[in-house]
Amino acid sequence: MTISPLALPFPALDAVAGVRIGTASVTYKNWTRDCVTLAAFIPGTAVAGVTTRSKCPSPEVELCRANLAGGRARGLIVNAGNSNAFTGLSGRQAAQAQAARVAERLGCSPAEVFSASTGVIGVPLPVDLALAGVDLAHAALGNGDFLAATNAIGTTDTFPKAATAAAMLGSTRVIITGIVKGSGMIAPDMATLLGFIFTDAAIAPPLWQAMLTAAVANSFNAITVDSDTSTSDTVLAFATGAAGNAELTSMDDAGADALAAALADVCRQLAILVVRDGEGASKLIEITVTGAIDDASARTVALSIANSPLVKTAIAGGDANWGRVVMAVGKAGEPAERDLLSIRFGDTLVASQGAVVPGYDEAPVAAHLAGSEILITADLGLGAGRARVWTCDLTHGYISINADYRS
Amino acid sequence: MTISPLALPFPALDAVAGVRIGTASVTYKNWTRDCVTLAAFIPGTAVAGVTTRSKCPSPEVELCRANLAGGRARGLIVNAGNSNAFTGLSGRQAAQAQAARVAERLGCSPAEVFSASTGVIGVPLPVDLALAGVDLAHAALGNGDFLAATNAIGTTDTFPKAATAAAMLGSTRVIITGIVKGSGMIAPDMATLLGFIFTDAAIAPPLWQAMLTAAVANSFNAITVDSDTSTSDTVLAFATGAAGNAELTSMDDAGADALAAALADVCRQLAILVVRDGEGASKLIEITVTGAIDDASARTVALSIANSPLVKTAIAGGDANWGRVVMAVGKAGEPAERDLLSIRFGDTLVASQGAVVPGYDEAPVAAHLAGSEILITADLGLGAGRARVWTCDLTHGYISINADYRS
Repeated sequence: MTISPLALPFPALDAVAGVRIGTASVTYKNWTRDCVTLAAFIPGTAVAGVTTRSKCPSPEVELCRANLAGGRARGLIVNAGNSNAFTGLSGRQAAQAQAARVAERLGCSPAEVFSASTGVIGVPLPVDLALAGVDLAHAALGNGDFLAATNAIGTTDTFPKAATAAAMLGSTRVIITGIVKGSGMIAPDMATLLGFIFTDAAIAPPLWQAMLTAAVANSFNAITVDSDTSTSDTVLAFATGAAGNAELTSMDDAGADALAAALADVCRQLAILVVRDGEGASKLIEITVTGAIDDASARTVALSIANSPLVKTAIAGGDANWGRVVMAVGKAGEPAERDLLSIRFGDTLVASQGAVVPGYDEAPVAAHLAGSEILITADLGLGAGRARVWTCDLTHGYISINADYRS
Repeated sequence: MTISPLALPFPALDAVAGVRIGTASVTYKNWTRDCVTLAAFIPGTAVAGVTTRSKCPSPEVELCRANLAGGRARGLIVNAGNSNAFTGLSGRQAAQAQAARVAERLGCSPAEVFSASTGVIGVPLPVDLALAGVDLAHAALGNGDFLAATNAIGTTDTFPKAATAAAMLGSTRVIITGIVKGSGMIAPDMATLLGFIFTDAAIAPPLWQAMLTAAVANSFNAITVDSDTSTSDTVLAFATGAAGNAELTSMDDAGADALAAALADVCRQLAILVVRDGEGASKLIEITVTGAIDDASARTVALSIANSPLVKTAIAGGDANWGRVVMAVGKAGEPAERDLLSIRFGDTLVASQGAVVPGYDEAPVAAHLAGSEILITADLGLGAGRARVWTCDLTHGYISINADYRS
């Protein structure tokens, strides 16, 4: 697999106190790499999560939803190569059996175990491999090799993706570190992909959930690779409390703002990394819509642009075909006035008031499009609503990956 | 340009009494082929139309909308290679000037002239070429060379697309003949592409409009190539009355049912031809959703499947990856129950009740997918709602065409 031209280096990551990680190989697919990841948390760890809005979720997603109500986590088990989605009763039993084995190994309740699987849909998780994976990964538990874990949760990812940030809670410094896998079947508004976030901060589960929900809205839910939404999308965030700060219970507590900001920063970094590894991506595209009647309307328009195959192929071709942006604004179904619309590529105003600008010079736009980070701005001229989303271009690579993925 | 492997032969078409057609070349692009089409109708011709729901329509679309209120047409002018969309005041003036020239040549009111342009967005229609085109096409008017007209209205189309049907109105035989151009930026629910339909039947404009609106819903609005919607989509239907039947004014009139059925048949044929010429298409995909809570819900689910890049690339690869159909059902946002869902490829039941069928044999599915006409059926098991839509696969050809279209 060719590494994405938009790849960034894996960051240096410290261990997160209270988190142990182990990985193992059990060949759900014909991979020699590790494909099972176990994380173990100290007692009292708070958990928050956001899962897919798919009407056909995997049993792992259902287990997460049920257990999130408790707000506490001791274990996380992740399988790569098999999503266990749409696998009926046997899939549900396999997920439950694996979670039970994790609980047994960690000496906790199955209600404190969180599960995620990713890969081909429709093939039941082989329960013997799933249980063996727990045992092997448990034997390998160590103080947090995030690179190994990131590699072990991936599927079509071409590079490992992680982000980290720190915050001061009063006099206590805490860290937040997240890992994520993409890289197709990525669309917003339904939660997202698989992302796992770890902090040593002490925080009450309801506040942690509120922070995560807010962070996801402007990160994982503001990206799209192909408009498709996985049946397994899950973001889970674990807060061990090992840093020893007084437990945060309200946004008014000292440092809560800082922790929320750090979480938002990590989520945004991770989300953009997913787009950077979008299947076949050669360019990262940031789309900003301003002047909409409200933020929600701006988001719909931004996603209409981001999901347009014609916009995405134009960017792939380095083609300043701003007419396709007009098309995508027009089809979004949101309030828009052709004769108030303006469009920028990079810093260059290309069109305004319903027509190309007088004396339009395509040269600076072409130069911008020759780069690997593309900015498109559409101002609707109607109000104060704004939104920003990220996507990638649509290339031959996407077709190659997805017309021949399963075989 | 390689002809689509899904192309069908151009049908034998008789002239439609009351319709004259002429085509001409004025090089809106560096094409040597004809790119201006003029149709002239006898006085009293009824017209019906459906236009794009884009919020950024072309001035031609606006002219059509205004003139449809009158219900009568004497002329149709079509430009290919330049859509004149998002071209501001000068674009509007060019469209008006061209329509005025048509009116002058045909001796009618500009309110009886209908206009359509297709091609690149954002470049004002060159008014000198537009006027010259009218004059040249007017000089070439003859008794309906539909093949020449079909070729002259095309852009990225790889083969000319037309359909015809006949109906008996009492003792009078009438014909309906339609031509259409695609073949990218095709999505439903917004009207469609450019399609022009001609009949010698006599029918009152309101009834003709009602028939066309109903026919479009299950034809042009039930197809998608790439989920993108043009700023210029227009279907116009002209009824000259030259056949001499008593004018139809109500669905209760003798033959009205037959005419409506023939119109629906022509629209459906034309719509599927557009999909057959979808940019890069190698397979025609018919998607049927049954068991939805109502027809509208079924249509949303069917379009979610039809617009999924992952479903479309799987079909391109001949991959029986039915899990992606589950994904697309799940993301549609409509009521669905994973454990009631069943999926068929061709005649083969692949999955039911939330899992793959026992003893699933992929061989007949693989054989079906090796063909060029693919049937996917999803039954939601909830109610009596059903819908059928058509799309094509997503291939390297689409990327090649669209990453390098304008240049």
